Amino acid sequence: MTDVATNMRLKLPIICFILEIILIILFGVLVQYNEETDAKEWHKKNHSDYENDFYYRYPSFQDVHVMIFIGFGFLMTFLQRYGFSSVGFNFLIAAFSLQWATLMQGFFHGMHGGKIHIGVESMINADFCTGSVLISFGAVLGKTSPVQLLVMALFEVTLFAVNEFILLTLLGTRDAGGSMTIHTFGAYFGLMVTRILYRPNLDKSKHRNSSVYHSDLFAMIGTIYLWMFWPSFNSAITAHGDDQHRTAMNTYYSLAACTLSTYGMSALTAHDGKLDMVHIQNAALAGGVAAGTAGEMMLTPYGSMIVGFLAGIISVLGFKYLSPILEEKLKIQDTCGVHNLHGMPGILGAIVGAVTAAVATADVYGDGMKDVFPDVASGKVDASYQGGIQAASLAVTLGIALLGGLIVGFILKLPVFGAPSDTICYEDNIYWEVSLTVVSESSFLESY
Amino acid sequence: MTDVATNMRLKLPIICFILEIILIILFGVLVQYNEETDAKEWHKKNHSDYENDFYYRYPSFQDVHVMIFIGFGFLMTFLQRYGFSSVGFNFLIAAFSLQWATLMQGFFHGMHGGKIHIGVESMINADFCTGSVLISFGAVLGKTSPVQLLVMALFEVTLFAVNEFILLTLLGTRDAGGSMTIHTFGAYFGLMVTRILYRPNLDKSKHRNSSVYHSDLFAMIGTIYLWMFWPSFNSAITAHGDDQHRTAMNTYYSLAACTLSTYGMSALTAHDGKLDMVHIQNAALAGGVAAGTAGEMMLTPYGSMIVGFLAGIISVLGFKYLSPILEEKLKIQDTCGVHNLHGMPGILGAIVGAVTAAVATADVYGDGMKDVFPDVASGKVDASYQGGIQAASLAVTLGIALLGGLIVGFILKLPVFGAPSDTICYEDNIYWEVSLTVVSESSFLESY
Amino acid sequence: MTDVATNMRLKLPIICFILEIILIILFGVLVQYNEETDAKEWHKKNHSDYENDFYYRYPSFQDVHVMIFIGFGFLMTFLQRYGFSSVGFNFLIAAFSLQWATLMQGFFHGMHGGKIHIGVESMINADFCTGSVLISFGAVLGKTSPVQLLVMALFEVTLFAVNEFILLTLLGTRDAGGSMTIHTFGAYFGLMVTRILYRPNLDKSKHRNSSVYHSDLFAMIGTIYLWMFWPSFNSAITAHGDDQHRTAMNTYYSLAACTLSTYGMSALTAHDGKLDMVHIQNAALAGGVAAGTAGEMMLTPYGSMIVGFLAGIISVLGFKYLSPILEEKLKIQDTCGVHNLHGMPGILGAIVGAVTAAVATADVYGDGMKDVFPDVASGKVDASYQGGIQAASLAVTLGIALLGGLIVGFILKLPVFGAPSDTICYEDNIYWEVSLTVVSESSFLESY
Repeated sequence: MTDVATNMRLKLPIICFILEIILIILFGVLVQYNEETDAKEWHKKNHSDYENDFYYRYPSFQDVHVMIFIGFGFLMTFLQRYGFSSVGFNFLIAAFSLQWATLMQGFFHGMHGGKIHIGVESMINADFCTGSVLISFGAVLGKTSPVQLLVMALFEVTLFAVNEFILLTLLGTRDAGGSMTIHTFGAYFGLMVTRILYRPNLDKSKHRNSSVYHSDLFAMIGTIYLWMFWPSFNSAITAHGDDQHRTAMNTYYSLAACTLSTYGMSALTAHDGKLDMVHIQNAALAGGVAAGTAGEMMLTPYGSMIVGFLAGIISVLGFKYLSPILEEKLKIQDTCGVHNLHGMPGILGAIVGAVTAAVATADVYGDGMKDVFPDVASGKVDASYQGGIQAASLAVTLGIALLGGLIVGFILKLPVFGAPSDTICYEDNIYWEVSLTVVSESSFLESY
Repeated sequence: MTDVATNMRLKLPIICFILEIILIILFGVLVQYNEETDAKEWHKKNHSDYENDFYYRYPSFQDVHVMIFIGFGFLMTFLQRYGFSSVGFNFLIAAFSLQWATLMQGFFHGMHGGKIHIGVESMINADFCTGSVLISFGAVLGKTSPVQLLVMALFEVTLFAVNEFILLTLLGTRDAGGSMTIHTFGAYFGLMVTRILYRPNLDKSKHRNSSVYHSDLFAMIGTIYLWMFWPSFNSAITAHGDDQHRTAMNTYYSLAACTLSTYGMSALTAHDGKLDMVHIQNAALAGGVAAGTAGEMMLTPYGSMIVGFLAGIISVLGFKYLSPILEEKLKIQDTCGVHNLHGMPGILGAIVGAVTAAVATADVYGDGMKDVFPDVASGKVDASYQGGIQAASLAVTLGIALLGGLIVGFILKLPVFGAPSDTICYEDNIYWEVSLTVVSESSFLESY
Repeated sequence: MTDVATNMRLKLPIICFILEIILIILFGVLVQYNEETDAKEWHKKNHSDYENDFYYRYPSFQDVHVMIFIGFGFLMTFLQRYGFSSVGFNFLIAAFSLQWATLMQGFFHGMHGGKIHIGVESMINADFCTGSVLISFGAVLGKTSPVQLLVMALFEVTLFAVNEFILLTLLGTRDAGGSMTIHTFGAYFGLMVTRILYRPNLDKSKHRNSSVYHSDLFAMIGTIYLWMFWPSFNSAITAHGDDQHRTAMNTYYSLAACTLSTYGMSALTAHDGKLDMVHIQNAALAGGVAAGTAGEMMLTPYGSMIVGFLAGIISVLGFKYLSPILEEKLKIQDTCGVHNLHGMPGILGAIVGAVTAAVATADVYGDGMKDVFPDVASGKVDASYQGGIQAASLAVTLGIALLGGLIVGFILKLPVFGAPSDTICYEDNIYWEVSLTVVSESSFLESY
């Protein structure tokens, strides 16, 4: 199983060390503690230590952090022979992306005297950007080397920051939970990359592109953590007070409704009425994606439930009927079905956000308008214009994601990155030492 | 393995869609944001965003949420062929129950101008009620269809809300961590249901009603999460300040002591001194259950430890000696042994709570009396009367649980819900697609 | 597999019950609620409930708690036949240690009128001390009985408290995340114990001293949780405000950088460039250990990254080249390689802390100096002297750890504690009931 082409002995160390050394140099030149993390700056002002934003954002940050490393990592362990790579490459590219995202987002979101100021909010944003990269990872799972993944992350983080800058800063779009910036962007970027990396002979690895009993249980760890902490994800960077509170609650009900429609649809679309683990592991999360934009708005609890309910239906239908078409007709080999979990629900979330914004009224929001729609509250735009901005942002996101994925896909095709051949995809043993001393459970017990 | 009777193709979608649509309609008519989640209401008042209860309850909520979905879900994966159903049905009925509980608890706990007002505290309460349903699920695990479970949840949530209303509102009982309302209620309700659903030929599925090595490790994920976050569970809705702080700490020490007595008893009751995973997975948690009522009181750290110590002993003895008797003599087939983890420790917790309440004095509680025993502080009742109320509440809870379980058990016997036959209990393959392409670990490695 | 020597039927119950009863008595005599957990004391003062330290420390506590019980517990499940013992003994000795640590730390850190006052901060400190015991457990994993482990914990907690008292109270050392007090102490104590318990014929159990595919995935659960929550660990007991905020962020970047250098080094040191799960599971965490002392200081983000980067390199090199030498030449059989994860990175962390302290200036710290270096801020010592104190503390810690491990190692050699013989190390079946009814996955599916 050792192959010169996929041998990582030099490729992986070289890229890891070069990237990290560049990161350290750039951090040394550009990054500073912000006034909440700097000993001198914090103590200059007259305020209580309890007012430090650490106490109001850090629990949310940790929930998001769990989603990124456990949630995404274990969700992808469903493949029978790809658990090490799923958790392990997720870990590697996330650890790189969050550092690089700190720089890119800091650069675009505004420097302070030539310096990027960081604290818990930038940490959350870096994790968010990382989430987008991991969504794209789901599309190419099993078919790429760790070097390819790091190169993809390098470009994707940069383009994510550009798109986020256009939306949040230039256009004034609202997208706290990232239906557009994170999910739609990550999904369509990844789908375009996997399209460019199309492998006509991938069926030679088909026997490994499925789950076994235990691998599905490991994947459920990922699913459940993503599901539980999604309320924290969507509310992590909304305004303090009612906004964080409402966003978390809307997401909670959206996900609960989504779970019921997912189970119903999964049984309904199976010829023998048996539930499909792929649906449960993925579609039940679509309610979180779809509440990503409108979650902070006055969506109402039942509105959130309708959104989640629809998201679950769309997502199961996508897995059942659309994915095979995408693969056969459009040559999009989407390993984890990110189109069904992040793509379509992300678009749904963007549309729901645009509509909810367009119907916002002072009567409903009161003085809270300035937190949710500052441009509307200040009179800069009216609500229907804000709705139009939201809709336009979806188009911008799709454009940048698809164009970016196209270019990055071709870069990843360069034959120097150690991609596996078509016969050994979905296989840990290419990049990992896998123990050869196997003691099966039965022989384990026979020995007594 | 496909059977007309257990085919869920129509049954499950129908119940899921009907229930969710009813929920959405009722939420639309009845539910509103409370003043901490509503944009307009929150901004009407003059207060800091940091005073929003989100910051003081949401971390506890998330810990409880993990207990409900990961804790209960994985604790039940110990069965060798029932992991999908354990995590998956847990997920489904919890997602339904938390929505339904929002309505039922909102209805009984007081409407505001015909509307139910919701926020983080109602989310915690909904999760609590869900926990009770999941305890009952443990009693019937492996023997019920998902449709039966949803029907059970529908009725159990309703009865839970009635019992909770009688105790907390009418009687003025104190039960912050739910020794009575959650654990005793859920356990005895579930035990009665499983009694009514008695299967005389269940021994035909006996070979599947046990664990294998890896399934026990998955179950330990559930156990450890329940154990770690139980301090958050018991303190999640106590009064702010010293109360939450003390409750969490009492529970922490109760659980630590319980763990030592569990290990000691498990070795002592085995003929060869070997520890039994069933005891460790379950009995070590009894200290959390038993501190559910008195945890918020001035139980003292060593008092908490005594309670936990006794709970561990009782629970192991129950698993070892009482469960077989219950099954043989009383025909109670209690899959997870909920009587030992939630039933007896719940009763112990209720008794400890009654005694601790009866001996409460102003000298010990000072001005903190109004948080823990408001009726005693206001002079409405004296401490010994409060103790009597606590004891009476245990009787009320047992009565409603047993009577409710009796009725619901007979409803669940209706032959339309797709229950499995006696020969195929404890089996995922009835309700789930289980992969047929199995690559054993040995063949996995031989291929290189 | 039943052996009189390792039979725990009397030994384990006796030690569990005696220890717990002693704990309860000592808690009854010595321990009281502190003014933040006592109903009367808290309500005596005029302050808001929101000022209770529960709200500013408890989320950190819960993250630390997860690291202790899930992190350490599952990290050690990598052994193919030792998963029950890894999680289960971790659970037992942690539950004991946290109670005993409450007493020992309370005794040394200052009594109040003959009483130990406890609250969330003492709970965090107890968990910290427990962490140190679990590090030592990693060194002797697979070779000790649960009775030996409890005896080891009894002495190690005591010595930990002595060392911590000398450093933090007598010398005025700063070590918020415990590079010295927790990691260096736990590692060298455990290494000395395993040296004294040297087993010349351990190769008879060598076939069990390795991982299988699924056990490595379980271990990754432990790794990822330790990695994610390490920012909470290092910041859990630093001063409020900028200090907690900065410490968490420094650790976050240190770990991210460490992950990249770990992956690079793991591929570089393998002859075929394949990643080694042992490195990923362990070395990627060294950045958290190495930021344990200097994390609260003005280390700067890029400084943190340099520290993490070096820690990852040192740790992988240790696993690859130093561990075999330690075993062959020095007869140190270090099951989990704690020398590489906690020993050397702990020393690195101590050195970084000493240097960072020595160069601290009022210009950088401003009024924040009083939080980070109170003795420097008060003029009691100057910064370079503080650096010297830090360096001396490393020497003190190493001395106490090695001497303590020596004595305790000899105590554990007493032939009454039920240690396994050389042929049955790394084996759950000695101390646990292991199911004999195994249904392999293939037979599982053939039955349909």
